[in-house]
Amino acid sequence: MNITLINPNSTASMTVKCHAAACSVASPTTRITSVNPEDSPASLQGYLDVAHAVVPMLRIMEAYPDSDAFIIACFDDSGLAAARCLTDKPVIGIGEAAFHMASIISCKFSVVTTLRRSIPGITENLKNYGLMERCAGVRASEISVLDLEKDDPNTLDTLNRCIRKAIEEDGAEAIVLGCAGMTNLTAQLAAEHKLPVIDGVTAAVGLGEALVRCGLRTSKIGGYGQP
Amino acid sequence: MNITLINPNSTASMTVKCHAAACSVASPTTRITSVNPEDSPASLQGYLDVAHAVVPMLRIMEAYPDSDAFIIACFDDSGLAAARCLTDKPVIGIGEAAFHMASIISCKFSVVTTLRRSIPGITENLKNYGLMERCAGVRASEISVLDLEKDDPNTLDTLNRCIRKAIEEDGAEAIVLGCAGMTNLTAQLAAEHKLPVIDGVTAAVGLGEALVRCGLRTSKIGGYGQP
Amino acid sequence: MNITLINPNSTASMTVKCHAAACSVASPTTRITSVNPEDSPASLQGYLDVAHAVVPMLRIMEAYPDSDAFIIACFDDSGLAAARCLTDKPVIGIGEAAFHMASIISCKFSVVTTLRRSIPGITENLKNYGLMERCAGVRASEISVLDLEKDDPNTLDTLNRCIRKAIEEDGAEAIVLGCAGMTNLTAQLAAEHKLPVIDGVTAAVGLGEALVRCGLRTSKIGGYGQP
Amino acid sequence: MNITLINPNSTASMTVKCHAAACSVASPTTRITSVNPEDSPASLQGYLDVAHAVVPMLRIMEAYPDSDAFIIACFDDSGLAAARCLTDKPVIGIGEAAFHMASIISCKFSVVTTLRRSIPGITENLKNYGLMERCAGVRASEISVLDLEKDDPNTLDTLNRCIRKAIEEDGAEAIVLGCAGMTNLTAQLAAEHKLPVIDGVTAAVGLGEALVRCGLRTSKIGGYGQP
Amino acid sequence: MNITLINPNSTASMTVKCHAAACSVASPTTRITSVNPEDSPASLQGYLDVAHAVVPMLRIMEAYPDSDAFIIACFDDSGLAAARCLTDKPVIGIGEAAFHMASIISCKFSVVTTLRRSIPGITENLKNYGLMERCAGVRASEISVLDLEKDDPNTLDTLNRCIRKAIEEDGAEAIVLGCAGMTNLTAQLAAEHKLPVIDGVTAAVGLGEALVRCGLRTSKIGGYGQP
Amino acid sequence: MNITLINPNSTASMTVKCHAAACSVASPTTRITSVNPEDSPASLQGYLDVAHAVVPMLRIMEAYPDSDAFIIACFDDSGLAAARCLTDKPVIGIGEAAFHMASIISCKFSVVTTLRRSIPGITENLKNYGLMERCAGVRASEISVLDLEKDDPNTLDTLNRCIRKAIEEDGAEAIVLGCAGMTNLTAQLAAEHKLPVIDGVTAAVGLGEALVRCGLRTSKIGGYGQP
Repeated sequence: MNITLINPNSTASMTVKCHAAACSVASPTTRITSVNPEDSPASLQGYLDVAHAVVPMLRIMEAYPDSDAFIIACFDDSGLAAARCLTDKPVIGIGEAAFHMASIISCKFSVVTTLRRSIPGITENLKNYGLMERCAGVRASEISVLDLEKDDPNTLDTLNRCIRKAIEEDGAEAIVLGCAGMTNLTAQLAAEHKLPVIDGVTAAVGLGEALVRCGLRTSKIGGYGQP
Repeated sequence: MNITLINPNSTASMTVKCHAAACSVASPTTRITSVNPEDSPASLQGYLDVAHAVVPMLRIMEAYPDSDAFIIACFDDSGLAAARCLTDKPVIGIGEAAFHMASIISCKFSVVTTLRRSIPGITENLKNYGLMERCAGVRASEISVLDLEKDDPNTLDTLNRCIRKAIEEDGAEAIVLGCAGMTNLTAQLAAEHKLPVIDGVTAAVGLGEALVRCGLRTSKIGGYGQP
Repeated sequence: MNITLINPNSTASMTVKCHAAACSVASPTTRITSVNPEDSPASLQGYLDVAHAVVPMLRIMEAYPDSDAFIIACFDDSGLAAARCLTDKPVIGIGEAAFHMASIISCKFSVVTTLRRSIPGITENLKNYGLMERCAGVRASEISVLDLEKDDPNTLDTLNRCIRKAIEEDGAEAIVLGCAGMTNLTAQLAAEHKLPVIDGVTAAVGLGEALVRCGLRTSKIGGYGQP
Repeated sequence: MNITLINPNSTASMTVKCHAAACSVASPTTRITSVNPEDSPASLQGYLDVAHAVVPMLRIMEAYPDSDAFIIACFDDSGLAAARCLTDKPVIGIGEAAFHMASIISCKFSVVTTLRRSIPGITENLKNYGLMERCAGVRASEISVLDLEKDDPNTLDTLNRCIRKAIEEDGAEAIVLGCAGMTNLTAQLAAEHKLPVIDGVTAAVGLGEALVRCGLRTSKIGGYGQP
Repeated sequence: MNITLINPNSTASMTVKCHAAACSVASPTTRITSVNPEDSPASLQGYLDVAHAVVPMLRIMEAYPDSDAFIIACFDDSGLAAARCLTDKPVIGIGEAAFHMASIISCKFSVVTTLRRSIPGITENLKNYGLMERCAGVRASEISVLDLEKDDPNTLDTLNRCIRKAIEEDGAEAIVLGCAGMTNLTAQLAAEHKLPVIDGVTAAVGLGEALVRCGLRTSKIGGYGQP
Repeated sequence: MNITLINPNSTASMTVKCHAAACSVASPTTRITSVNPEDSPASLQGYLDVAHAVVPMLRIMEAYPDSDAFIIACFDDSGLAAARCLTDKPVIGIGEAAFHMASIISCKFSVVTTLRRSIPGITENLKNYGLMERCAGVRASEISVLDLEKDDPNTLDTLNRCIRKAIEEDGAEAIVLGCAGMTNLTAQLAAEHKLPVIDGVTAAVGLGEALVRCGLRTSKIGGYGQP
């Protein structure tokens, strides 16, 4: 099975990180190809960045016609609906994947993301998917996407503080990491807080494999129909 | 006051039609400039078309820095959130404008749009704005956007049938026309059915003038903040 | 264009204040007539006051048959639905107007009102309009309506504290002032907190003018039909 | 125990009918006093009638200070929130009572009411109480309130048709009768359709007795606080 | 009238306590029979305990065919829907009863329950009944069900602290006690906080009597139909 | 990887059918063990059957401690929350699995189930999971669970009629089969209607494998905590 993972921003180090995470959970017979556009913003923080990343991402999708499934590896699920119109192969956003998985292993989850500016877009997605019903809160760490790429010792501290608040104040039973750039911290945070921490990249690989094995493809008779 | 109306598709005849509608309700001291990108799809029907129209539309916005307000004249409010990140001048989508106005003059309204394919995007917007609470239904006439530009005598018949169903089956008290290309039919349909018919283009001009006169600008401290 | 602004309580100083605000944003050709009943409570704080104010307000509406639109200048939108049954001219509540405007210039707004006792009525309205979806919180300053009419230096301090909490704890991106008597503080509060502060009186004038220019009138085929 | 039942319209024959229904279910030690204002509309059909009935109804409440509970015997629960501010004795609307009871004996109920004009007010109440969650539909029979007072043989036929549609199209498991004037038809309709038919007048008597026996009184620390 | 109150756990002291509460509000002609299974968990704290208690409870129902109504005296309304399939006599859960009553005497109520583990089940019920709309919060005291049976002087202190937070932070206007084992503290807590405190046991007796007097029985044509 | 699939009813032919479906999509290294209790109802149709099936199902779970994940192969997700309290291994209901998968490949799906009596339980689950937001309707075919086990030529006709209505009247873009006993018809129905048809059994296998590969386990700090 071929899964194409597209990091819709142009920061190659994030693509590498996502690729490692994706490969770590993929089945032995799944081949992950990870790629990012070069003509996209360096990070997608808020609605404007997302707007500029969608068309470059769609172009990459067209360059990989042999994929059995696509993963959009940005937590705001940038361009997800448009991507589904391009193909009947499953397309999975990592935000979406994490929300669905979190709903299955907890009664209520909180999202810990980067900047306050990203909260409305994430909230809009949660409502659109219906999964706000299971979301206890969306919290900004105020660590920017690109700062996650640096080896700043404060990063973990800040995320730990956010997670503790989510548990105590929101009643969260699981934590969804709200940025592809946090994928490498998943295990450490889960161990620290003794609760499930869900990374969207791995969740999306799992869902993608599941959809392909089940022979499920995107419906073409409604909103995702081809023009 | 300068209002820039952007038709985000590349069909100039629709821009002309929207311009006429906009001017018909603008205050004497308001100057409407209507414009469309050339590198955009000819019509925006569904998520994929919208995705391709957003960046061209944002580029036009940047070319009109002296505007006091912007109108996005496509009923799916394409790129509205991204556009609001570009400027603190009010930006109004015509779908949004129509929904707000309809909520003030009726208990419940129905939307009559073009193709079934566009329903999910419109529904998503209604939910995101909260105004689904006042929406009795979204109905597709199955007349495409570009067919509205032809002088087909069946167009009115088809819309009349849809509107009658909305009144009888949905309990609609007002009708929102779900495409900028229907703007010229507003008066005729209102007279035929003896209920308010709301066209988003004129509604958006009204709202744009109102926001400017009230000195209200887009908030920059959250989701619409500038990167 | 003639707009009749009705302050439904009997405190003339509030009517004067609302009139000034309304005139400050009205188009040059709009004539605002502001009036209040004499047989109404001095302030409308909670459901019981509102109940006593509705009929006097409806009587005033009937005394101004030449109005092109009516504004109900009390933040709880007292008697709004009943008023719409009396006429097909647009009738706009200032609460409603503020919520709609706030939804267009921010992702999420908070309301800062007078007494805790008024919160349930405001919340009920927000839900009924659907705009609770965009509301981050409704906060009581515990300054009574009539205390706003005094020149108490603490008023601003108290409101500032409320607004800061709304920004920090609710994540509000804009503030709606939840009482007609706060209209004169709008500019000052907006400057202090560097975010949009929406006053319902001016918002309602803008919406009223917009509806009239667009030729939109209240639907008479459903809940607002004349008996 | 003294329960005062107020029919908020001025049609005495409806008060008599409600009184009979109320007495038929009251405990032996409960004394029902049924009364209506004389200065109120003959029937309450829509928002405007309701607006004119509230103050006369509140005045009656004040004339019966020895009541242990009050029932507002109009299906739109006219002035319910205001009435609760007047006293800490329980006040129950018959619409509200019927919705709560129906929720306990069925998964989903439909409302069959008089005119289409009344649907928005009933829907607004259902949403405000939260019980729209259990409501499968609100249907208008287009029999006016006063026509229910006549002995028209078609009345039952029309209601039967509505109920059949509610069962088949809405999936209703119980029927709420949406007008105090239908109270005398309850048993007949229940027998015909072999499902629970809930009349708000009797439901409210039951709830009123229950609240009084439990020693529960209206909270005075929030929205129903006395000014 | 015969009402059978079933405490679905096997702790007889709780059954005794519930019986006393039930009898204190029942009409003179109502006979309350209170009973508990012996083969059930000692307390029902969370989903697993509830799962083990349902069949024993259903068996008891079948042993009391002469009941006019049944009360399930566990706050999580264990097995309520299944119980309704067994009989057309009214079956009332004490959680449900408390939520309905609280909705009638306050704009917003909070629930104070035992363990954090029970919150998701209570929340699920509130959403299912629609009454989450009126619920300001569900708070865990972290006092276990069986600790309520001991005479621990700290119990009241802990509950008082929870109630104060519910009033101040949630804006609660009434408090619902979220465990059958708290029924004996109702009067004391209401006096302390000067707001209505609702105990589900007494509320359920009131509702049960009301349903029986009104001749209302569970619908058998839908979800509660007999197999 | 070991996945234990539990058919919670006692009809062995359904277990065999589910096992075949599960094996058809499982990864080569996944071992599916399918089992059903003997002391459970023959089919689970409605709340009462479900109540009797939960404890036998939980007992089976305890007999398979080496499972890496559990699947509850009844569409009403019988006892799902309780099962999650028993273990931290992932537990997936087939209803839940189908809803999540359908949400990812369509904007809106409809459910086609067996009897009208099962609709409320399915609806309750959809609301609880949040996925009602994506559900266009739940339709009963009125084919009972055990009739699905017979080779009745009318079965396909009846399901085809239901699916056509779901597409035309609900606007469904995908169909979820609402009974484990329909699993063998999936491919045929998908081919007939040219849209995705989702069977919960295969969907649950996919999700189960995904959760295990991602190392995700049920949260133990909240509602699914062990007593």
